[in-house]
Amino acid sequence: MMVSATTLADKQVNPALAALETPALLLDANKMDRNIERMRARLARHQVSFRPHVKTNKCMQVTQRLLDAGATSITVSTLREAEYFSSHGVKDILYAVSMSPNKLGHALRLRESGVKLAVIVDNVEMALQLNPDRLSAADRLDVLIEIDSDGHRSGVVPEAAALLEIAQALQSVGLEVGGVMTHAGDSYNCRSAAALCALAEQERAAVVRAAQRLRDAGHSCPVVSVGSTPTALFAEHLEGVTEVRAGVFIFFDLVMAGIGVCSTDEIALSVLATVIGHQKEKGWTLTDAGWMAMSRDRGTSKQPVDQGYGLVCDIAGQPLGHMLMVDANQEHGILAPRSGSTLDAPYLPVGTQVRILPNHACATAAQFPAYQVLDAQQRVTDCWPRFYGW
Amino acid sequence: MMVSATTLADKQVNPALAALETPALLLDANKMDRNIERMRARLARHQVSFRPHVKTNKCMQVTQRLLDAGATSITVSTLREAEYFSSHGVKDILYAVSMSPNKLGHALRLRESGVKLAVIVDNVEMALQLNPDRLSAADRLDVLIEIDSDGHRSGVVPEAAALLEIAQALQSVGLEVGGVMTHAGDSYNCRSAAALCALAEQERAAVVRAAQRLRDAGHSCPVVSVGSTPTALFAEHLEGVTEVRAGVFIFFDLVMAGIGVCSTDEIALSVLATVIGHQKEKGWTLTDAGWMAMSRDRGTSKQPVDQGYGLVCDIAGQPLGHMLMVDANQEHGILAPRSGSTLDAPYLPVGTQVRILPNHACATAAQFPAYQVLDAQQRVTDCWPRFYGW
Repeated sequence: MMVSATTLADKQVNPALAALETPALLLDANKMDRNIERMRARLARHQVSFRPHVKTNKCMQVTQRLLDAGATSITVSTLREAEYFSSHGVKDILYAVSMSPNKLGHALRLRESGVKLAVIVDNVEMALQLNPDRLSAADRLDVLIEIDSDGHRSGVVPEAAALLEIAQALQSVGLEVGGVMTHAGDSYNCRSAAALCALAEQERAAVVRAAQRLRDAGHSCPVVSVGSTPTALFAEHLEGVTEVRAGVFIFFDLVMAGIGVCSTDEIALSVLATVIGHQKEKGWTLTDAGWMAMSRDRGTSKQPVDQGYGLVCDIAGQPLGHMLMVDANQEHGILAPRSGSTLDAPYLPVGTQVRILPNHACATAAQFPAYQVLDAQQRVTDCWPRFYGW
Repeated sequence: MMVSATTLADKQVNPALAALETPALLLDANKMDRNIERMRARLARHQVSFRPHVKTNKCMQVTQRLLDAGATSITVSTLREAEYFSSHGVKDILYAVSMSPNKLGHALRLRESGVKLAVIVDNVEMALQLNPDRLSAADRLDVLIEIDSDGHRSGVVPEAAALLEIAQALQSVGLEVGGVMTHAGDSYNCRSAAALCALAEQERAAVVRAAQRLRDAGHSCPVVSVGSTPTALFAEHLEGVTEVRAGVFIFFDLVMAGIGVCSTDEIALSVLATVIGHQKEKGWTLTDAGWMAMSRDRGTSKQPVDQGYGLVCDIAGQPLGHMLMVDANQEHGILAPRSGSTLDAPYLPVGTQVRILPNHACATAAQFPAYQVLDAQQRVTDCWPRFYGW
């Protein structure tokens, strides 16, 4: 495939888009809205409530679209996210990383300020430190116990003695068990719809079993929470589950496309980059989007189709066939045909703008202070700020 | 090796350090100052001027230490860096990524505002677009030609016909050749002092030869600029070179330690993390510093000693022997003994704080909005802001 300067110039491209200084983070709002609707419809069918994970977007305007679609609560990965979103009016927040002693004061301040903040624990040591002696009943944290449903990272397995020990530890410091939660992070390693369905069921069964053990032992367990984008979209039923968390579905990315959860055309996020040079003998096109823009995430490297640092599209968002971002320096990207491709690299003149679809939306978006928002006609309609840090 | 809670509690740890909410980016100012002095002394011996690369630090207080050590000019990787540092009084700036048409207006505005901004090109297409018709002589950009000294990314090789063609293109739009520059990025792949010395000489010889060809063709070529931390520290002589750029030396990191440029004890940057749980059967310790804190950089994965996502130290900064951060989720880190280690993982109670040395200082620092600055007694003395974005 050859893409000439003329071909690119012929395309109707919004002047504001072409004039953006690069690298820039582009968000196709139309695709985002479709992705939200897909998840909303899916969860409505299961009759569970939706507590979207906003760690992916870290932006009030994006989160507002989730609230507009019916979400009334959110999941966060940092207390800074909790601070930010609660200051914008979102008051029902689950902080889904195990609580630690040095964050407890901060969490309690959020709770005292009127945030219905829930935290999680997966060990007795921490459960015993959640002592709310100095707090009124209203100020006490909701506490969920984290369940390990797939060996992926944290949590206690449903049959563990520790599950009931944690519940007893909470009781000993005057707290009720608020519920159980799990995250089937291993879903990112699934390679088929059947595997995703099976893992979704494993996730559901684990957390429902843990809830049952707690209830059998006399504990309340009102919340039964699961969540990952792949399992949320592929679960056949969610019996016994009360809420679902998921985050990356809102943008999707190449890792999600690689496991069959979306098509590349549904990816709402891309990085606009400009061609700054060539190494013609090597078939390289150099751009001004390096790893600082794309992140160092190489999440597709273990998938059947390795997408390098990202899949290269023209400025209108159409993939340039076999072109990948194959390597990265801090502010330099190297584009070249996919390994094994027998096609020549298209010649993209200096100044040509391309869009690069990211491996991992959470990681790429985190590198930027703002989204350049595009409508369905690919016009730049807005600039939405993101925050970062802890 | 066993590290008990008692052992850790016995250590004299500054209360302000222990109280930091985590993850936090720690900067040992004493080590930084020693690293700066090492580079200063090395370059003074070569009688070349120093134009440090501030893409690593993106912080005025850190850059001020470089100015205090005698630097009068800087290198940047983005125009945002140029904006920021020039607004803080640094006026002699080289933007060391090939200029592109959509950044030209921004670069000229900086120049017109009184910044002595130099840019680089490595192709005729862009050289012809640097037309300064509308500008007074004083407002014209200094332009260096980028030389490819090691096949690593951009630039023209010293013997290329393109070298003189670019010089002629500049001349045709009324610009002088401001000089030549190169970056021996391949130095990161060196594995011995001898290889580093050889690559430093290759870098020097390439750029000096390019300058000679330009001068032989009647062009001026006042600036002859080289730079990478490894070659800057290992060059045996720099005859014909006028200035050196280097950035990561100020903090150092595990990649630099892996190629023998520094010891791990000289690394000035670390991430403070807190233990949030365990998976005891797997030997895992979980922390609240995931890839969002460390970055996804796995730069040591191709080195003889793979350091995972980072080398784990106690809160005082002493390595915990064989412990690495072996895996990462967004806000979860997994610590475990180095692969092949027969030692047990030390038991680090929930709440224990550890420091993790990064693979790549530029990438890890970029994840944080600020440095927590430590003095030689590991007391938190200051908080220095960083910026990000483009």
